[in-house]
Amino acid sequence: MIGIDWGTTAFRAYRLDDRGEVLDGIDRAAGILTIPPGGFPAALQEAIGPWLAAGETRILLCGMVGSRQGWVEAPYLPCPAGPAAIAAAVVRLDFAGVDCVLVPGLTARDAGGVPDVMRGEETKLVGLLAELGQAAALVCLPGTHSKWARLEAGRIAGFATQMTGETRAVLLQHSILGRLAEPGPGDEAAFLRGVARAGEAGGLLHHLFGTRALGLMGELPASGTDSYLSGLLIGHELQAVLAEGVPTGPIHLAGSETLARAYALAFTAQGLSFTRHADDIVARGLARIAETVAWSPA
Amino acid sequence: MIGIDWGTTAFRAYRLDDRGEVLDGIDRAAGILTIPPGGFPAALQEAIGPWLAAGETRILLCGMVGSRQGWVEAPYLPCPAGPAAIAAAVVRLDFAGVDCVLVPGLTARDAGGVPDVMRGEETKLVGLLAELGQAAALVCLPGTHSKWARLEAGRIAGFATQMTGETRAVLLQHSILGRLAEPGPGDEAAFLRGVARAGEAGGLLHHLFGTRALGLMGELPASGTDSYLSGLLIGHELQAVLAEGVPTGPIHLAGSETLARAYALAFTAQGLSFTRHADDIVARGLARIAETVAWSPA
Repeated sequence: MIGIDWGTTAFRAYRLDDRGEVLDGIDRAAGILTIPPGGFPAALQEAIGPWLAAGETRILLCGMVGSRQGWVEAPYLPCPAGPAAIAAAVVRLDFAGVDCVLVPGLTARDAGGVPDVMRGEETKLVGLLAELGQAAALVCLPGTHSKWARLEAGRIAGFATQMTGETRAVLLQHSILGRLAEPGPGDEAAFLRGVARAGEAGGLLHHLFGTRALGLMGELPASGTDSYLSGLLIGHELQAVLAEGVPTGPIHLAGSETLARAYALAFTAQGLSFTRHADDIVARGLARIAETVAWSPA
Repeated sequence: MIGIDWGTTAFRAYRLDDRGEVLDGIDRAAGILTIPPGGFPAALQEAIGPWLAAGETRILLCGMVGSRQGWVEAPYLPCPAGPAAIAAAVVRLDFAGVDCVLVPGLTARDAGGVPDVMRGEETKLVGLLAELGQAAALVCLPGTHSKWARLEAGRIAGFATQMTGETRAVLLQHSILGRLAEPGPGDEAAFLRGVARAGEAGGLLHHLFGTRALGLMGELPASGTDSYLSGLLIGHELQAVLAEGVPTGPIHLAGSETLARAYALAFTAQGLSFTRHADDIVARGLARIAETVAWSPA
Protein backbone atom coordinates (compact mmCIF):
# COMPACT_ATOMS: atom_id res chain seq x y z
CA MET A 1 0.00 0.00 0.00
CA ILE A 2 0.90 3.68 -0.20
CA GLY A 3 0.67 5.92 2.86
CA ILE A 4 0.79 9.72 2.50
CA ASP A 5 1.09 12.58 4.97
CA TRP A 6 0.11 15.67 2.96
CA GLY A 7 0.43 18.71 5.13
CA THR A 8 0.34 22.46 4.70
CA THR A 9 3.95 22.76 3.58
CA ALA A 10 5.20 19.20 2.97
CA PHE A 11 4.25 16.08 1.00
CA ARG A 12 5.59 12.79 2.39
CA ALA A 13 4.71 9.45 0.78
CA TYR A 14 5.69 5.93 1.85
CA ARG A 15 5.45 2.67 -0.04
CA LEU A 16 4.77 0.09 2.66
CA ASP A 17 4.91 -3.71 2.61
CA ASP A 18 2.33 -6.00 4.23
CA ARG A 19 4.06 -5.72 7.62
CA GLY A 20 4.08 -1.92 7.45
CA GLU A 21 7.79 -1.63 6.69
CA VAL A 22 8.82 1.31 4.50
CA LEU A 23 10.04 0.10 1.09
CA ASP A 24 10.46 3.53 -0.48
CA GLY A 25 9.75 7.17 0.37
CA ILE A 26 9.17 10.59 -1.17
CA ASP A 27 9.66 13.87 0.77
CA ARG A 28 8.90 17.12 -1.07
CA ALA A 29 8.13 20.72 -0.18
CA ALA A 30 4.86 20.31 -2.10
CA GLY A 31 2.35 21.01 0.65
CA ILE A 32 -1.31 21.65 -0.08
CA LEU A 33 -0.70 25.40 -0.28
CA THR A 34 1.29 24.79 -3.50
CA ILE A 35 -1.56 22.89 -5.21
CA PRO A 36 -3.93 24.88 -7.46
CA PRO A 37 -7.70 24.36 -7.05
CA GLY A 38 -8.68 20.96 -8.48
CA GLY A 39 -5.01 20.06 -8.86
CA PHE A 40 -4.78 17.32 -6.22
CA PRO A 41 -5.35 14.25 -8.47
CA ALA A 42 -2.77 15.41 -11.01
CA ALA A 43 -0.20 16.25 -8.32
CA LEU A 44 -0.68 12.88 -6.67
CA GLN A 45 -0.47 11.02 -10.00
CA GLU A 46 2.74 12.86 -10.81
CA ALA A 47 4.28 12.04 -7.42
CA ILE A 48 3.37 8.35 -7.03
CA GLY A 49 2.77 7.34 -10.67
CA PRO A 50 5.70 4.88 -10.67
CA TRP A 51 4.35 3.05 -7.59
CA LEU A 52 0.90 2.79 -9.18
CA ALA A 53 2.47 1.47 -12.36
CA ALA A 54 4.23 -1.12 -10.20
CA GLY A 55 0.84 -2.42 -9.06
CA GLU A 56 -0.09 -0.59 -5.86
CA THR A 57 -3.89 -0.29 -5.53
CA ARG A 58 -4.40 1.06 -2.00
CA ILE A 59 -3.68 4.62 -0.88
CA LEU A 60 -4.24 6.10 2.58
CA LEU A 61 -3.83 9.87 3.01
CA CYS A 62 -3.71 11.94 6.18
CA GLY A 63 -3.03 15.58 7.06
CA MET A 64 -4.27 18.96 5.87
CA VAL A 65 -5.17 17.40 2.50
CA GLY A 66 -8.42 16.57 4.33
CA SER A 67 -9.09 20.18 5.34
CA ARG A 68 -11.28 22.84 3.77
CA GLN A 69 -8.22 24.04 1.85
CA GLY A 70 -7.36 20.47 0.75
CA TRP A 71 -8.67 17.90 -1.72
CA VAL A 72 -11.88 16.96 0.09
CA GLU A 73 -12.92 18.12 3.53
CA ALA A 74 -13.05 15.12 5.87
CA PRO A 75 -15.08 15.46 9.08
CA TYR A 76 -13.51 15.63 12.54
CA LEU A 77 -13.99 12.49 14.63
CA PRO A 78 -14.57 13.20 18.35
CA CYS A 79 -12.17 11.90 21.01
CA PRO A 80 -11.75 9.39 22.51
CA ALA A 81 -10.89 7.58 19.28
CA GLY A 82 -8.64 4.63 18.51
CA PRO A 83 -7.24 3.16 15.28
CA ALA A 84 -10.40 1.15 14.57
CA ALA A 85 -12.74 4.16 14.90
CA ILE A 86 -10.41 6.23 12.73
CA ALA A 87 -10.22 3.49 10.09
CA ALA A 88 -14.01 3.23 10.10
CA ALA A 89 -14.38 6.96 9.43
CA VAL A 90 -12.13 7.30 6.36
CA VAL A 91 -13.44 9.28 3.41
CA ARG A 92 -13.24 7.72 -0.07
CA LEU A 93 -11.66 9.69 -2.91
CA ASP A 94 -12.09 9.15 -6.63
CA PHE A 95 -8.54 8.71 -7.89
CA ALA A 96 -7.02 6.77 -10.79
CA GLY A 97 -9.41 3.83 -10.36
CA VAL A 98 -7.59 2.67 -7.22
CA ASP A 99 -8.73 2.38 -3.62
CA CYS A 100 -7.93 5.82 -2.19
CA VAL A 101 -9.10 6.94 1.25
CA LEU A 102 -8.54 9.91 3.56
CA VAL A 103 -8.02 9.75 7.35
CA PRO A 104 -10.42 12.02 9.30
CA GLY A 105 -9.09 14.64 11.71
CA LEU A 106 -9.90 14.53 15.39
CA THR A 107 -11.67 16.98 17.66
CA ALA A 108 -11.74 17.27 21.45
CA ARG A 109 -13.10 19.73 24.02
CA ASP A 110 -11.21 21.12 26.97
CA ALA A 111 -12.50 21.72 30.52
CA GLY A 112 -13.97 25.02 29.35
CA GLY A 113 -15.93 23.29 26.58
CA VAL A 114 -13.90 24.95 23.84
CA PRO A 115 -13.20 22.73 20.83
CA ASP A 116 -9.78 21.77 19.52
CA VAL A 117 -8.81 20.12 16.24
CA MET A 118 -5.97 18.16 14.63
CA ARG A 119 -5.27 16.77 11.16
CA GLY A 120 -2.31 14.50 10.56
CA GLU A 121 -1.21 14.29 14.19
CA GLU A 122 -3.90 11.65 14.88
CA THR A 123 -2.00 9.35 12.52
CA LYS A 124 1.29 10.00 14.34
CA LEU A 125 -0.48 9.23 17.61
CA VAL A 126 -1.75 5.94 16.15
CA GLY A 127 1.87 5.23 15.25
CA LEU A 128 2.82 5.79 18.89
CA LEU A 129 -0.08 3.64 20.09
CA ALA A 130 1.39 0.79 18.04
CA GLU A 131 4.50 1.20 20.19
CA LEU A 132 2.95 2.03 23.57
CA GLY A 133 0.01 -0.38 23.54
CA GLN A 134 -2.63 0.08 26.24
CA ALA A 135 -0.51 2.13 28.64
CA ALA A 136 -1.57 5.64 29.63
CA ALA A 137 0.82 8.19 28.15
CA LEU A 138 1.22 11.94 27.66
CA VAL A 139 2.50 12.84 24.19
CA CYS A 140 4.02 16.11 22.97
CA LEU A 141 4.18 16.74 19.22
CA PRO A 142 5.88 20.15 18.92
CA GLY A 143 5.31 22.28 15.85
CA THR A 144 3.68 25.41 14.46
CA HIS A 145 0.71 24.29 16.51
CA SER A 146 2.04 21.97 19.22
CA LYS A 147 -0.23 19.08 20.18
CA TRP A 148 -0.36 17.56 23.66
CA ALA A 149 -2.32 14.31 23.67
CA ARG A 150 -3.33 11.80 26.31
CA LEU A 151 -3.29 8.16 25.25
CA GLU A 152 -5.40 5.74 27.30
CA ALA A 153 -6.42 2.12 26.76
CA GLY A 154 -5.14 2.08 23.18
CA ARG A 155 -7.04 5.23 22.19
CA ILE A 156 -6.45 8.98 21.89
CA ALA A 157 -8.38 10.16 24.95
CA GLY A 158 -8.04 13.88 24.34
CA PHE A 159 -5.61 16.61 23.31
CA ALA A 160 -4.88 20.32 23.48
CA THR A 161 -3.13 22.57 20.98
CA GLN A 162 -0.68 25.33 21.91
CA MET A 163 -0.06 27.94 19.20
CA THR A 164 3.60 28.23 20.19
CA GLY A 165 5.51 27.97 16.91
CA GLU A 166 3.29 30.30 14.91
CA THR A 167 3.19 32.91 17.71
CA ARG A 168 6.99 32.87 17.81
CA ALA A 169 7.21 33.25 14.03
CA VAL A 170 4.81 36.19 13.74
CA LEU A 171 6.36 38.01 16.70
CA LEU A 172 9.87 37.59 15.28
CA GLN A 173 8.88 38.58 11.76
CA HIS A 174 6.35 41.31 12.41
CA SER A 175 6.58 42.74 15.95
CA ILE A 176 8.99 45.10 17.64
CA LEU A 177 10.72 42.02 19.12
CA GLY A 178 12.06 41.07 15.71
CA ARG A 179 13.63 44.50 15.22
CA LEU A 180 16.12 43.75 17.97
CA ALA A 181 16.82 40.18 16.94
CA GLU A 182 19.86 39.32 14.89
CA PRO A 183 20.39 35.94 13.32
CA GLY A 184 22.68 33.79 15.39
CA PRO A 185 23.35 30.18 16.24
CA GLY A 186 20.95 28.68 18.77
CA ASP A 187 21.91 30.26 22.10
CA GLU A 188 21.22 27.57 24.70
CA ALA A 189 21.81 29.85 27.68
CA ALA A 190 19.37 32.46 26.34
CA PHE A 191 16.84 29.70 25.59
CA LEU A 192 17.03 28.42 29.17
CA ARG A 193 16.71 31.97 30.55
CA GLY A 194 13.46 32.23 28.57
CA VAL A 195 12.22 28.87 29.91
CA ALA A 196 12.94 29.97 33.49
CA ARG A 197 11.35 33.37 32.95
CA ALA A 198 8.08 31.66 31.95
CA GLY A 199 7.81 30.37 35.52
CA GLU A 200 7.83 33.89 36.99
CA ALA A 201 4.90 36.21 37.66
CA GLY A 202 3.68 38.78 35.15
CA GLY A 203 2.11 36.71 32.39
CA LEU A 204 3.21 35.99 28.83
CA LEU A 205 2.27 39.45 27.45
CA HIS A 206 4.49 41.11 30.07
CA HIS A 207 7.30 38.63 29.50
CA LEU A 208 7.17 39.35 25.77
CA PHE A 209 7.76 43.05 26.33
CA GLY A 210 10.52 42.16 28.78
CA THR A 211 12.38 40.57 25.86
CA ARG A 212 12.57 44.01 24.29
CA ALA A 213 13.43 45.79 27.54
CA LEU A 214 16.27 43.32 28.19
CA GLY A 215 17.63 44.10 24.74
CA LEU A 216 17.30 47.88 25.18
CA MET A 217 19.11 47.73 28.52
CA GLY A 218 21.93 45.63 27.08
CA GLU A 219 21.01 42.59 29.20
CA LEU A 220 20.23 40.24 26.31
CA PRO A 221 22.41 40.10 23.18
CA ALA A 222 20.63 40.65 19.85
CA SER A 223 21.89 37.25 18.71
CA GLY A 224 20.14 35.62 21.69
CA THR A 225 16.73 37.26 21.25
CA ASP A 226 15.34 34.50 19.04
CA SER A 227 16.48 31.75 21.43
CA TYR A 228 15.19 33.64 24.49
CA LEU A 229 11.81 34.13 22.81
CA SER A 230 11.65 30.43 21.90
CA GLY A 231 12.43 29.48 25.49
CA LEU A 232 9.84 31.93 26.80
CA LEU A 233 7.06 30.57 24.58
CA ILE A 234 7.92 26.89 25.04
CA GLY A 235 8.24 27.62 28.77
CA HIS A 236 4.73 29.10 28.84
CA GLU A 237 3.41 26.12 26.88
CA LEU A 238 4.96 23.87 29.50
CA GLN A 239 3.63 25.93 32.43
CA ALA A 240 0.12 25.56 31.01
CA VAL A 241 0.54 21.79 30.69
CA LEU A 242 2.00 21.48 34.21
CA ALA A 243 -0.87 23.54 35.64
CA GLU A 244 -3.16 20.63 34.69
CA GLY A 245 -1.03 18.26 36.77
CA VAL A 246 2.56 17.04 36.76
CA PRO A 247 2.90 14.03 34.43
CA THR A 248 3.18 10.72 36.26
CA GLY A 249 5.33 9.11 33.57
CA PRO A 250 7.74 10.29 30.90
CA ILE A 251 6.49 12.72 28.26
CA HIS A 252 6.58 11.01 24.85
CA LEU A 253 8.19 13.52 22.49
CA ALA A 254 8.22 13.25 18.69
CA GLY A 255 9.12 16.05 16.29
CA SER A 256 11.78 17.42 13.99
CA GLU A 257 15.34 17.28 15.29
CA THR A 258 15.53 21.04 16.04
CA LEU A 259 12.20 21.25 17.82
CA ALA A 260 12.58 17.98 19.72
CA ARG A 261 15.99 19.15 20.95
CA ALA A 262 14.54 22.46 22.17
CA TYR A 263 11.64 20.78 23.98
CA ALA A 264 14.00 18.19 25.49
CA LEU A 265 16.12 21.05 26.90
CA ALA A 266 13.02 22.69 28.37
CA PHE A 267 11.80 19.40 29.90
CA THR A 268 15.19 18.78 31.48
CA ALA A 269 15.28 22.33 32.87
CA GLN A 270 11.90 21.68 34.50
CA GLY A 271 12.98 18.32 35.89
CA LEU A 272 10.57 16.41 33.65
CA SER A 273 11.45 12.98 32.28
CA PHE A 274 10.78 12.25 28.64
CA THR A 275 11.26 9.65 25.89
CA ARG A 276 12.08 10.70 22.34
CA HIS A 277 10.48 8.94 19.41
CA ALA A 278 11.42 9.04 15.74
CA ASP A 279 9.71 11.77 13.75
CA ASP A 280 8.53 9.21 11.14
CA ILE A 281 5.92 7.59 13.37
CA VAL A 282 3.42 8.76 10.78
CA ALA A 283 4.36 5.87 8.44
CA ARG A 284 3.71 3.41 11.25
CA GLY A 285 0.38 5.10 11.96
CA LEU A 286 -0.67 4.92 8.31
CA ALA A 287 0.20 1.21 8.22
CA ARG A 288 -1.71 0.58 11.45
CA ILE A 289 -4.86 2.39 10.25
CA ALA A 290 -4.63 0.62 6.87
CA GLU A 291 -4.83 -2.76 8.66
CA THR A 292 -8.48 -2.12 9.61
CA VAL A 293 -9.71 0.05 6.74
CA ALA A 294 -12.53 -1.66 4.84
CA TRP A 295 -10.72 -1.68 1.48
CA SER A 296 -12.74 -2.57 -1.59
CA PRO A 297 -12.40 -6.26 -2.47
CA ALA A 298 -9.35 -6.55 -4.74
CA MET B 1 5.29 77.36 27.00
CA ILE B 2 4.91 74.64 24.41
CA GLY B 3 4.42 71.00 25.46
CA ILE B 4 4.83 68.20 22.93
CA ASP B 5 4.08 64.47 23.02
CA TRP B 6 5.95 63.09 20.02
CA GLY B 7 5.32 59.39 19.75
CA THR B 8 5.92 56.62 17.25
CA THR B 9 2.88 57.41 15.12
CA ALA B 10 1.51 60.76 16.37
CA PHE B 11 2.68 64.31 17.02
CA ARG B 12 0.64 66.27 19.59
CA ALA B 13 1.61 69.80 20.59
CA TYR B 14 -0.02 72.12 23.15
CA ARG B 15 0.44 75.81 23.72
CA LEU B 16 -0.01 76.24 27.45
CA ASP B 17 -0.54 79.33 29.60
CA ASP B 18 1.15 79.97 32.94
CA ARG B 19 -1.48 77.92 34.79
CA GLY B 20 -1.04 74.95 32.45
CA GLU B 21 -4.29 75.55 30.55
CA VAL B 22 -4.29 74.57 26.88
CA LEU B 23 -4.52 77.66 24.65
CA ASP B 24 -4.08 75.88 21.33
CA GLY B 25 -3.28 72.39 20.07
CA ILE B 26 -1.87 70.48 17.08
CA ASP B 27 -2.59 66.77 16.47
CA ARG B 28 -0.97 65.17 13.42
CA ALA B 29 -0.12 61.66 12.20
CA ALA B 30 3.52 62.79 12.02
CA GLY B 31 5.11 60.36 14.46
CA ILE B 32 8.87 59.90 14.67
CA LEU B 33 8.75 57.07 12.12
CA THR B 34 7.79 59.65 9.45
CA ILE B 35 10.81 61.89 10.18
CA PRO B 36 13.96 61.35 8.06
CA PRO B 37 17.35 61.16 9.84
CA GLY B 38 18.33 64.62 11.07
CA GLY B 39 14.90 65.95 10.17
CA PHE B 40 13.57 66.63 13.67
CA PRO B 41 14.47 70.35 13.97
CA ALA B 42 12.95 71.17 10.58
CA ALA B 43 9.78 69.17 11.30
CA LEU B 44 9.35 70.88 14.67
CA GLN B 45 10.00 74.34 13.21
CA GLU B 46 7.40 73.67 10.54
CA ALA B 47 4.81 72.50 13.08
CA ILE B 48 5.16 75.15 15.81
CA GLY B 49 6.73 78.03 13.85
CA PRO B 50 3.73 80.31 14.39
CA TRP B 51 3.86 79.80 18.18
CA LEU B 52 7.59 80.59 18.21
CA ALA B 53 6.94 83.68 16.10
CA ALA B 54 4.33 84.69 18.69
CA GLY B 55 7.05 84.72 21.35
CA GLU B 56 7.13 81.27 22.98
CA THR B 57 10.67 80.45 24.23
CA ARG B 58 10.20 77.24 26.24
CA ILE B 59 9.54 73.80 24.77
CA LEU B 60 9.17 70.54 26.68
CA LEU B 61 9.06 67.31 24.66
CA CYS B 62 8.19 63.78 25.79
CA GLY B 63 7.66 60.43 24.09
CA MET B 64 9.57 58.28 21.62
CA VAL B 65 11.27 61.42 20.29
CA GLY B 66 13.70 60.68 23.15
CA SER B 67 14.41 57.12 21.99
CA ARG B 68 17.25 55.69 19.94
CA GLN B 69 15.05 56.16 16.84
CA GLY B 70 14.21 59.76 17.83
CA TRP B 71 15.93 63.14 17.91
CA VAL B 72 18.32 62.51 20.81
CA GLU B 73 18.37 59.44 23.04
CA ALA B 74 17.46 60.47 26.58
CA PRO B 75 18.42 58.13 29.43
CA TYR B 76 15.88 56.12 31.42
CA LEU B 77 15.36 57.35 34.96
CA PRO B 78 14.84 54.54 37.50
CA CYS B 79 11.60 54.29 39.52
CA PRO B 80 10.48 55.44 41.98
CA ALA B 81 10.48 58.87 40.37
CA GLY B 82 8.26 61.93 40.81
CA PRO B 83 7.77 65.14 38.84
CA ALA B 84 10.78 66.86 40.46
CA ALA B 85 13.21 64.01 39.66
CA ILE B 86 11.89 63.86 36.10
CA ALA B 87 12.23 67.63 35.68
CA ALA B 88 15.80 67.45 37.01
CA ALA B 89 16.74 64.81 34.42
CA VAL B 90 15.59 66.57 31.25
CA VAL B 91 17.96 66.59 28.27
CA ARG B 92 18.66 69.88 26.52
CA LEU B 93 18.26 70.12 22.75
CA ASP B 94 19.76 72.70 20.43
CA PHE B 95 16.73 74.14 18.64
CA ALA B 96 15.98 77.54 17.12
CA GLY B 97 17.79 79.44 19.89
CA VAL B 98 14.99 78.70 22.37
CA ASP B 99 14.93 76.71 25.60
CA CYS B 100 14.10 73.20 24.40
CA VAL B 101 14.28 70.13 26.68
CA LEU B 102 13.35 66.47 26.52
CA VAL B 103 11.67 64.43 29.29
CA PRO B 104 13.58 61.21 30.16
CA GLY B 105 11.87 57.83 29.99
CA LEU B 106 11.47 55.67 33.08
CA THR B 107 12.72 52.21 33.89
CA ALA B 108 11.63 49.73 36.57
CA ARG B 109 12.39 46.12 37.45
CA ASP B 110 9.83 43.46 38.24
CA ALA B 111 10.02 40.75 40.93
CA GLY B 112 12.12 38.63 38.58
CA GLY B 113 14.67 41.45 38.15
CA VAL B 114 13.75 41.94 34.49
CA PRO B 115 13.79 45.58 33.34
CA ASP B 116 10.86 47.47 31.89
CA VAL B 117 10.78 50.82 30.09
CA MET B 118 8.39 53.62 29.16
CA ARG B 119 8.64 56.85 27.17
CA GLY B 120 5.79 59.33 27.13
CA GLU B 121 3.60 57.49 29.62
CA GLU B 122 5.66 58.92 32.53
CA THR B 123 4.34 62.35 31.53
CA LYS B 124 0.74 61.08 31.48
CA LEU B 125 1.32 59.61 34.93
CA VAL B 126 2.63 62.96 36.17
CA GLY B 127 -0.59 64.46 34.80
CA LEU B 128 -2.56 61.95 36.88
CA LEU B 129 -0.41 62.67 39.94
CA ALA B 130 -1.47 66.31 39.63
CA GLU B 131 -5.03 65.05 40.03
CA LEU B 132 -4.53 62.25 42.55
CA GLY B 133 -1.99 63.89 44.86
CA GLN B 134 -0.28 61.66 47.42
CA ALA B 135 -2.82 58.81 47.33
CA ALA B 136 -1.73 55.30 46.34
CA ALA B 137 -3.26 54.37 43.01
CA LEU B 138 -3.10 51.70 40.31
CA VAL B 139 -3.14 53.15 36.79
CA CYS B 140 -3.85 51.40 33.47
CA LEU B 141 -2.77 53.13 30.25
CA PRO B 142 -3.93 50.75 27.51
CA GLY B 143 -2.22 50.79 24.13
CA THR B 144 0.08 48.95 21.76
CA HIS B 145 2.15 48.31 24.88
CA SER B 146 -0.20 48.71 27.86
CA LYS B 147 1.33 50.23 30.97
CA TRP B 148 0.22 49.39 34.50
CA ALA B 149 1.72 51.77 37.03
CA ARG B 150 1.60 52.15 40.80
CA LEU B 151 1.51 55.70 42.14
CA GLU B 152 2.61 56.20 45.75
CA ALA B 153 3.36 59.33 47.77
CA GLY B 154 3.25 61.58 44.73
CA ARG B 155 5.68 59.45 42.74
CA ILE B 156 5.62 56.68 40.12
CA ALA B 157 6.63 53.75 42.33
CA GLY B 158 6.87 51.13 39.57
CA PHE B 159 5.20 49.81 36.44
CA ALA B 160 4.85 46.81 34.15
CA THR B 161 4.21 46.66 30.42
CA GLN B 162 1.89 44.17 28.73
CA MET B 163 2.42 43.73 24.97
CA THR B 164 -1.30 43.30 24.40
CA GLY B 165 -2.12 45.63 21.51
CA GLU B 166 0.83 44.71 19.35
CA THR B 167 0.33 40.98 19.93
CA ARG B 168 -3.29 41.34 18.84
CA ALA B 169 -2.28 43.29 15.74
CA VAL B 170 0.39 40.86 14.52
CA LEU B 171 -1.80 37.82 15.18
CA LEU B 172 -4.72 39.36 13.28
CA GLN B 173 -2.59 40.54 10.38
CA HIS B 174 -0.12 37.70 10.04
CA SER B 175 -1.28 34.49 11.76
CA ILE B 176 -3.84 31.86 10.87
CA LEU B 177 -6.26 33.63 13.27
CA GLY B 178 -6.56 36.54 10.87
CA ARG B 179 -7.54 34.26 7.99
CA LEU B 180 -10.83 33.48 9.72
CA ALA B 181 -11.53 37.04 10.84
CA GLU B 182 -13.86 39.24 8.86
CA PRO B 183 -14.23 42.93 9.53
CA GLY B 184 -17.27 43.65 11.61
CA PRO B 185 -18.54 46.11 14.16
CA GLY B 186 -17.21 45.58 17.69
CA ASP B 187 -18.99 42.46 18.93
CA GLU B 188 -19.41 43.01 22.67
CA ALA B 189 -20.66 39.49 23.38
CA ALA B 190 -17.66 37.94 21.60
CA PHE B 191 -15.33 40.33 23.45
CA LEU B 192 -16.76 39.27 26.81
CA ARG B 193 -16.51 35.57 25.84
CA GLY B 194 -12.81 36.19 25.25
CA VAL B 195 -12.39 37.96 28.60
CA ALA B 196 -14.08 35.05 30.40
CA ARG B 197 -12.04 32.48 28.49
CA ALA B 198 -8.82 34.09 29.77
CA GLY B 199 -9.80 32.99 33.28
CA GLU B 200 -9.92 29.31 32.28
CA ALA B 201 -7.10 26.75 32.33
CA GLY B 202 -4.90 26.03 29.32
CA GLY B 203 -2.78 29.16 28.97
CA LEU B 204 -2.79 31.95 26.40
CA LEU B 205 -1.13 29.90 23.63
CA HIS B 206 -3.86 27.26 23.92
CA HIS B 207 -6.60 29.87 24.07
CA LEU B 208 -5.25 31.48 20.90
CA PHE B 209 -5.59 28.24 18.95
CA GLY B 210 -9.04 27.81 20.45
CA THR B 211 -10.06 31.00 18.64
CA ARG B 212 -9.40 29.19 15.38
CA ALA B 213 -11.05 25.94 16.47
CA LEU B 214 -14.18 27.82 17.55
CA GLY B 215 -14.32 29.38 14.10
CA LEU B 216 -13.77 26.06 12.29
CA MET B 217 -16.51 24.39 14.31
CA GLY B 218 -18.95 27.22 13.60
CA GLU B 219 -19.05 28.30 17.27
CA LEU B 220 -17.66 31.82 16.73
CA PRO B 221 -18.76 34.01 13.80
CA ALA B 222 -15.98 35.33 11.54
CA SER B 223 -17.18 38.87 12.30
CA GLY B 224 -16.62 38.23 16.02
CA THR B 225 -13.09 36.81 15.80
CA ASP B 226 -11.38 40.18 16.20
CA SER B 227 -13.48 41.10 19.25
CA TYR B 228 -13.02 37.65 20.82
CA LEU B 229 -9.25 37.88 20.34
CA SER B 230 -9.21 41.37 21.88
CA GLY B 231 -11.15 40.11 24.87
CA LEU B 232 -8.87 37.10 25.22
CA LEU B 233 -5.69 39.19 25.23
CA ILE B 234 -7.04 41.97 27.47
CA GLY B 235 -8.41 39.23 29.72
CA HIS B 236 -4.97 37.62 29.99
CA GLU B 237 -3.42 41.03 30.69
CA LEU B 238 -5.95 41.45 33.50
CA GLN B 239 -5.37 37.94 34.88
CA ALA B 240 -1.65 38.71 35.13
CA VAL B 241 -2.35 41.96 36.99
CA LEU B 242 -4.85 40.28 39.34
CA ALA B 243 -2.36 37.50 40.08
CA GLU B 244 -0.22 40.14 41.80
CA GLY B 245 -3.12 41.04 44.09
CA VAL B 246 -6.64 42.39 43.69
CA PRO B 247 -6.55 46.22 43.61
CA THR B 248 -7.74 47.81 46.84
CA GLY B 249 -9.11 50.91 45.10
CA PRO B 250 -10.45 51.78 41.67
CA ILE B 251 -8.19 51.25 38.65
CA HIS B 252 -7.40 54.64 37.09
CA LEU B 253 -7.92 54.20 33.36
CA ALA B 254 -6.79 56.65 30.66
CA GLY B 255 -6.62 55.90 26.96
CA SER B 256 -8.26 56.45 23.60
CA GLU B 257 -12.06 56.16 23.54
CA THR B 258 -12.05 52.73 21.83
CA LEU B 259 -9.45 51.17 24.08
CA ALA B 260 -10.74 52.71 27.30
CA ARG B 261 -14.21 51.42 26.47
CA ALA B 262 -12.87 47.88 25.88
CA TYR B 263 -10.88 47.88 29.11
CA ALA B 264 -13.83 49.28 31.04
CA LEU B 265 -15.98 46.40 29.75
CA ALA B 266 -13.33 43.89 30.84
CA PHE B 267 -13.00 45.50 34.29
CA THR B 268 -16.75 45.42 34.79
CA ALA B 269 -16.90 41.77 33.71
CA GLN B 270 -14.28 40.97 36.34
CA GLY B 271 -16.09 42.97 39.04
CA LEU B 272 -13.32 45.58 39.24
CA SER B 273 -14.09 49.21 39.95
CA PHE B 274 -12.41 51.89 37.89
CA THR B 275 -12.30 55.62 37.22
CA ARG B 276 -11.86 56.94 33.69
CA HIS B 277 -9.62 59.92 33.04
CA ALA B 278 -9.37 62.11 29.95
CA ASP B 279 -6.84 60.89 27.37
CA ASP B 280 -5.19 64.36 27.30
CA ILE B 281 -3.59 64.09 30.73
CA VAL B 282 -0.29 64.38 28.88
CA ALA B 283 -0.79 68.18 28.53
CA ARG B 284 -1.31 68.44 32.28
CA GLY B 285 1.82 66.32 32.87
CA LEU B 286 3.90 68.50 30.55
CA ALA B 287 2.71 71.62 32.39
CA ARG B 288 3.46 70.04 35.76
CA ILE B 289 7.01 68.98 34.79
CA ALA B 290 7.65 72.40 33.21
CA GLU B 291 6.93 74.03 36.59
CA THR B 292 10.12 72.59 38.07
CA VAL B 293 12.43 72.40 35.02
CA ALA B 294 15.49 74.62 35.48
CA TRP B 295 14.79 76.79 32.43
CA SER B 296 17.56 79.11 31.26
CA PRO B 297 17.15 82.62 32.69
CA ALA B 298 14.95 84.51 30.24
